[in-house]
Amino acid sequence: MLNSILLDGLALAGAGIGAGVAALAAGLGIGRIGSSAVESIARQPSESGKIQTAMLIAAALIEGVALFGVVVCLLIALA
Amino acid sequence: MLNSILLDGLALAGAGIGAGVAALAAGLGIGRIGSSAVESIARQPSESGKIQTAMLIAAALIEGVALFGVVVCLLIALA
Amino acid sequence: MLNSILLDGLALAGAGIGAGVAALAAGLGIGRIGSSAVESIARQPSESGKIQTAMLIAAALIEGVALFGVVVCLLIALA
Repeated sequence: MLNSILLDGLALAGAGIGAGVAALAAGLGIGRIGSSAVESIARQPSESGKIQTAMLIAAALIEGVALFGVVVCLLIALA
Repeated sequence: MLNSILLDGLALAGAGIGAGVAALAAGLGIGRIGSSAVESIARQPSESGKIQTAMLIAAALIEGVALFGVVVCLLIALA
Repeated sequence: MLNSILLDGLALAGAGIGAGVAALAAGLGIGRIGSSAVESIARQPSESGKIQTAMLIAAALIEGVALFGVVVCLLIALA
């Protein structure tokens, strides 16, 4: 009984921290890309289409892993 | 009794820390994008529309993951 | 009995934190690549194709390891 409860506590704590760190990944990564993208558009407004495409590709790659990580933590939390 | 309390303590601690880190992610990421965006608009006022669009896309991607992470922590806290 | 339960708790906690750190890896790495790529496109718009190809190759390498790491954490969580 005690043990079962300890299991749940550790697992839930890890899931919560993991979900936060995965979100941090998206914040740091996409934040840096978006910051550079808006500055690049200001420097070369005529290339805003290409710049936005490259921004979206890189941001989508980060978004995919980060969301996958949060979903894994959600599965741990619901298990 | 003790164990049940320990479970709740660990789970709630993890959920709280995770929610905070997820909010930190949004703060760092969107803060950086917004900062660059306003500076870019000041440098190229005629392109403010394109710059604002790029800012919104990147900020929305971060916001999505961060909110999802906070919701996972909320589920842990309410479980 | 107790030990088996403690094992499970520790394993799940490690899986959650590991999934978050793997996502963080993708965020830091791809974020840096994407940031430099959009700035490079702004500086040399005529070479945007080559720049985007190089960005994609490097980002895909990071994405592969990060996704593999999250999948390993998922396998731990489901075991």
